[in-house]
Amino acid sequence: MYTINENYNKLPGSYLFSDIAKRVAAYKEANPKADIIRLGIGDVTQPIAPTIIKALHNAVDEMGNSETFHGYAPDLGYAFLREAIAQKDYKNRGANIDADEIFISDGAKSDSGNIQELFGPDNIIAVTDPVYPVYVDSNVMGGRCGTYLKDEQKWSDIVYLPCTAENGFVPALPDKTPDIIYLCLPNNPTGTTLTKDELQVWVDYANKNGALIIYDAAYEAYISEADVPHSIYECEGAYECAIEIRSFSKNAGFTGVRLGFTVVPKALKCGDTSLNAMWARRHGTKFNGAPYIIQRAGEAVYSDDGQKEIKEQIAYYMKNASVIREGLSSAGYEVYGGINAPYIWLKTPDGMTSWEFFDYLLNEKNIVGTPGSGFGPSGEGYFRLTAFGTFENSVRAVERIKS
Amino acid sequence: MYTINENYNKLPGSYLFSDIAKRVAAYKEANPKADIIRLGIGDVTQPIAPTIIKALHNAVDEMGNSETFHGYAPDLGYAFLREAIAQKDYKNRGANIDADEIFISDGAKSDSGNIQELFGPDNIIAVTDPVYPVYVDSNVMGGRCGTYLKDEQKWSDIVYLPCTAENGFVPALPDKTPDIIYLCLPNNPTGTTLTKDELQVWVDYANKNGALIIYDAAYEAYISEADVPHSIYECEGAYECAIEIRSFSKNAGFTGVRLGFTVVPKALKCGDTSLNAMWARRHGTKFNGAPYIIQRAGEAVYSDDGQKEIKEQIAYYMKNASVIREGLSSAGYEVYGGINAPYIWLKTPDGMTSWEFFDYLLNEKNIVGTPGSGFGPSGEGYFRLTAFGTFENSVRAVERIKS
Repeated sequence: MYTINENYNKLPGSYLFSDIAKRVAAYKEANPKADIIRLGIGDVTQPIAPTIIKALHNAVDEMGNSETFHGYAPDLGYAFLREAIAQKDYKNRGANIDADEIFISDGAKSDSGNIQELFGPDNIIAVTDPVYPVYVDSNVMGGRCGTYLKDEQKWSDIVYLPCTAENGFVPALPDKTPDIIYLCLPNNPTGTTLTKDELQVWVDYANKNGALIIYDAAYEAYISEADVPHSIYECEGAYECAIEIRSFSKNAGFTGVRLGFTVVPKALKCGDTSLNAMWARRHGTKFNGAPYIIQRAGEAVYSDDGQKEIKEQIAYYMKNASVIREGLSSAGYEVYGGINAPYIWLKTPDGMTSWEFFDYLLNEKNIVGTPGSGFGPSGEGYFRLTAFGTFENSVRAVERIKS
Repeated sequence: MYTINENYNKLPGSYLFSDIAKRVAAYKEANPKADIIRLGIGDVTQPIAPTIIKALHNAVDEMGNSETFHGYAPDLGYAFLREAIAQKDYKNRGANIDADEIFISDGAKSDSGNIQELFGPDNIIAVTDPVYPVYVDSNVMGGRCGTYLKDEQKWSDIVYLPCTAENGFVPALPDKTPDIIYLCLPNNPTGTTLTKDELQVWVDYANKNGALIIYDAAYEAYISEADVPHSIYECEGAYECAIEIRSFSKNAGFTGVRLGFTVVPKALKCGDTSLNAMWARRHGTKFNGAPYIIQRAGEAVYSDDGQKEIKEQIAYYMKNASVIREGLSSAGYEVYGGINAPYIWLKTPDGMTSWEFFDYLLNEKNIVGTPGSGFGPSGEGYFRLTAFGTFENSVRAVERIKS
């Protein structure tokens, strides 16, 4: 008689974004004419840039011709893409990452969810609080989080690193030493980040305590301040203690195109075991490479024209961020983020809970955002708005909230 | 101090296809002018069909236009594709599978490797021997296979189901009852398959013993005989005991395009737990949907023109299979498969081991195939050739072997 992975049954039944979708659908049904502005999920709205579209068309043509057809891709990614990334995202920034330390995937969410497989079930994980839910849920599935304490909305075995206005969204080193530390910087959901010196503290801590950092840099393209690192490998000692996950979703609008990569340095070892070799084995066994045409699109992102075009898109979204941030600020809201990230994190007014404010915005202003408490207990009393809408809707949303 | 998943260290160091690649590279270096014909790995050679190319171009154009841009896909797949599959692959064959029982993925290899996550670590798995290595390796990583017995080339806790010429490649019911049974039919590597009645025996056995069948039907498009089922759901009782995995790689040449799907019926439950809900949760947590443009390509596979074109491709490969099968047979080889599958499985001559025959073919005939022993101990003394080359090379390969 077969048995299931019982860890799945530990997961709370409801998902943040499906709860939101249900409330919005109910409102929409009761108010069919409502003009709802969605600044909730982190999905982009600008189309794929022309240079990338051209690369996609070219690659599609190649696939239709027997002379240029491509079958199975290398499991770990095509050299043309791995080399472009190594040079332009790393070596050009002074980080000594080689092409064979870069693993191309179908997206950062897959990598974020799958990376925990490399580790034993007894590792204690630490997450910032609030946090992107995938880190926690994938570790629950892997049996690492203990039991869910409903009242506290916490897992018994996770080390939480609160990030709130009180500590300026800079997590303090924990009392209990974790084995694996997830850091997402610039941060989803808070839109805040750490300076290089602040991140160096965590790298040093990891190296001193034999901990591993899983560094999610999906939003690095939005960094505008000089003292904020784009990669954890800008910090000294990070090759020996950190894995970095990157996405094309937010810098080039690939949410529906699907491409990402993970950096596992060859210097990263647990005893004698190379994590680079383990991740290669994982890719080789459970993945068959990202599509050829999508990898060619990724290559185009690094071309001169591609870079120019995606920088315009990022500037477009950051103009939205600025409109939302400044508009709400002038309306008296306490507002964070939006400077090095496409997310604005605001304190709910008048002591409202996150969900109370969600209902207020939906019912009174016809705006959909994301309740901060959905990202973890320290998100209670906060609310996330994204800059990924259109400029027109960002302006209209601010006007509605102000009115 | 973090620790790794020690199961990874149990995996034998060498991979079948990298061993082959090394031997071929060494031969090539010593004989740079050798005209090598590759009938080794199961990769296709025909370009993507025109109707599918057109759908890809259309979808690329949509992604470049803000009015028609698609961001995040539904985690489980677009309705247009799930519905086409439910209707054309299932309902039209009398199998009552609904769109919400179909989960679109980036390929059958990913699904084959990931599906074991849903099950507890103590389940005993059964595999046919020889077998596609992913089933075994992914379960080793999941801690289900015990220890590797090097002399026997077997895992201590796996139930092996030998498939050899002696039993006509029809596995016998095992003495020890397994919990999870992997069946790949038509089979990779042997190219043989089961009739509907023979498969019904396994469905009945699973239902009687509380076992689950993971049915890999990646090669179903190659079935030519009427009494061979295209889906396990053609058997009575399969909705309650079977998951089916399907691929677009071999029916439509998507090895480098990446698209597949898994069917998890809503009727499939382990106690009160719905496996359909578990797989949905897995997709929602660790996957972000297949690319929009690739799903549109998948939809085109089901169009009338798409069907016509891919049937021509399959006929092309099956003509190769026939040439290889009949050529070797007339040269005195014992040959199996190649009637309902694109693989020819032959008995090595003169009692040669699989690797001896590999070296003979490479060195004397400049042909690359795959040693049967690489797929499991019962593959020793056998050899796999694929029909996925060009027609010209298939003919030349047979002529060389005969000469």
